[in-house]
Amino acid sequence: MIQLIDQRRLPHQFVIEEVRTVAEMAAAIREMHVRGAGLIGAAAGYGMYLATFESDLNAAADRLKATRPTAVNLAWAIDRQLRNIGGAKTAEERQRVAFQTAQQIADEDAEYCRRIGEHGVELIRKLSEKKSGPVNILTHCNAGWLAFVDYGSATSPIYAAHDAGIPVHVWVDETRPRSQGSKLTAWELGQHGVPHTVIADNTGGHLMQRGKVDAVMVGTDRTTYTGDVANKIGTYLKALAAKDNGVPFYVALPSSSFDWNIRDGLNEIPIEERGSEEVSHADGFHGGAHVEVRVTPEHSPAANFGFDVTPRKFVTGLITERGVCEATEESILALFPEHRGR
Amino acid sequence: MIQLIDQRRLPHQFVIEEVRTVAEMAAAIREMHVRGAGLIGAAAGYGMYLATFESDLNAAADRLKATRPTAVNLAWAIDRQLRNIGGAKTAEERQRVAFQTAQQIADEDAEYCRRIGEHGVELIRKLSEKKSGPVNILTHCNAGWLAFVDYGSATSPIYAAHDAGIPVHVWVDETRPRSQGSKLTAWELGQHGVPHTVIADNTGGHLMQRGKVDAVMVGTDRTTYTGDVANKIGTYLKALAAKDNGVPFYVALPSSSFDWNIRDGLNEIPIEERGSEEVSHADGFHGGAHVEVRVTPEHSPAANFGFDVTPRKFVTGLITERGVCEATEESILALFPEHRGR
Repeated sequence: MIQLIDQRRLPHQFVIEEVRTVAEMAAAIREMHVRGAGLIGAAAGYGMYLATFESDLNAAADRLKATRPTAVNLAWAIDRQLRNIGGAKTAEERQRVAFQTAQQIADEDAEYCRRIGEHGVELIRKLSEKKSGPVNILTHCNAGWLAFVDYGSATSPIYAAHDAGIPVHVWVDETRPRSQGSKLTAWELGQHGVPHTVIADNTGGHLMQRGKVDAVMVGTDRTTYTGDVANKIGTYLKALAAKDNGVPFYVALPSSSFDWNIRDGLNEIPIEERGSEEVSHADGFHGGAHVEVRVTPEHSPAANFGFDVTPRKFVTGLITERGVCEATEESILALFPEHRGR
Repeated sequence: MIQLIDQRRLPHQFVIEEVRTVAEMAAAIREMHVRGAGLIGAAAGYGMYLATFESDLNAAADRLKATRPTAVNLAWAIDRQLRNIGGAKTAEERQRVAFQTAQQIADEDAEYCRRIGEHGVELIRKLSEKKSGPVNILTHCNAGWLAFVDYGSATSPIYAAHDAGIPVHVWVDETRPRSQGSKLTAWELGQHGVPHTVIADNTGGHLMQRGKVDAVMVGTDRTTYTGDVANKIGTYLKALAAKDNGVPFYVALPSSSFDWNIRDGLNEIPIEERGSEEVSHADGFHGGAHVEVRVTPEHSPAANFGFDVTPRKFVTGLITERGVCEATEESILALFPEHRGR
């Protein structure tokens, strides 16, 4: 049995969910009880552990992979499990290996995110030395510890800066339609004592025009080895505004979020489409309960694309567990030479 | 007594409000019972008519002008009333002149928006001739008949195209934080039978990258005579995406939305800041009632900038009652030569 935080009820309710079967884990990933690049990978790892108690490993792998098509950590974790479990001979050994692998995936994610913080904090330190007052960082969606196993990717440098006494303030995009910024990032930052302000997703361009953003830092659900970045829908718009206003745009990612097979992010990364009710409705807390309200008229259709792709030319740098590199094939493969020549 | 549609309850409830005093009209404008460039002007016109029954016309003018700092139609309508009422000698004459002027402002707005439709439909017709299937137009916020007295500005060409049998489909930005797209534009288009799809504000860039947007058409709350466009927060982000993807970006406006005194939109147009509760909360319909839900954590601050400025270089054309022009001083003043030499 695996325990998860059901993130759908945050920040108003903290609900622990118990997951016992592959079907339950697939539902938890698909319905976004758990979400975020690293955590999806970790959850899939534990999902494959649960699969060793059921009948067909390959069917379980396919089922889990189908839950979130854009997230590359998902397939990465599942394929790693299949490789490792494949060497085991008995049911008991398969269970043991699968559990160890799931733990490794989770531990690595935490360690890689910690290192992302170490590398990223130097970028924030440099921005801080050039100005008085706090470094204003804009982030989109949630690439915090809720999205990963521990520190988060995009927020890891922010926490590291805050803990090192570098003054930071975070502009938190609310991130419609699921409002992970309002609900998760704001809550995380508040828990950690990091100054922050929630804004509508429409606001970042205006703030950049007025010099109120020193850097953008976001996570990614899949980045090609050529530097194209798939992330939560709307990220591309912030990258455009950053470029237009000379604001650096950083993407933080553990190496598990690289796709080493895809060259052209815009044409090759599948973009998940989700239910239209996420757009037609909004949800939150009212009268002590979680309530969903309908915003659009009854008969108006809505469309819900989960991600967009930011072309590499808009990305100032990638912050990985091995250091910061440019969003180019050459620079990425210089940090990860073991992936050359694929 | 003046009757208004209280737009805060649309699309789920159609509420008519009766306004009897300047204070009530100022509240209705400030709290956005009525909103939208043209309608704010018309409401202010009728507000000044109500003022002729009260004591101090100049105090009423100041009070009404202070309600929405970015909207230029407001000051335009009030100053026109002050000029016209100024020539009247008796209280009765002031009331008669103020009522006539208010009617003129409203009638002109309707007529100008009708002509905007006539000019704008030709742009849509040309786009239609270059492709099969519907012309996909993305719009932000509500510049429809709810925002004006009759046809609307940005939607006027769309209605005209639909009525002329040109197939159109509208991507409706939900337009957080107040969701005028979800609530008002979608409702308007649905009532008129125009095919449309509501999307999160984050979505437009992705759609443009995939060739799913043929043009952007928005309104404006104030456009400088040099072509800088203040409009609902987030408009600038769509203009950037349009530029990056070669999608034409049009702004529709009656001449009353031009500011003939300001050269530099970015530095000179005041940007309204509204209450943070619009960002921390969302509202809609639940269980037969209008409900407001809290989205952000209790102690997270939020900021709420109402507008942004799209620099002229991102604007393909301005659609006015006198025709389409470029977003340049030369081209604007060629259409409106009476404003030369200010």
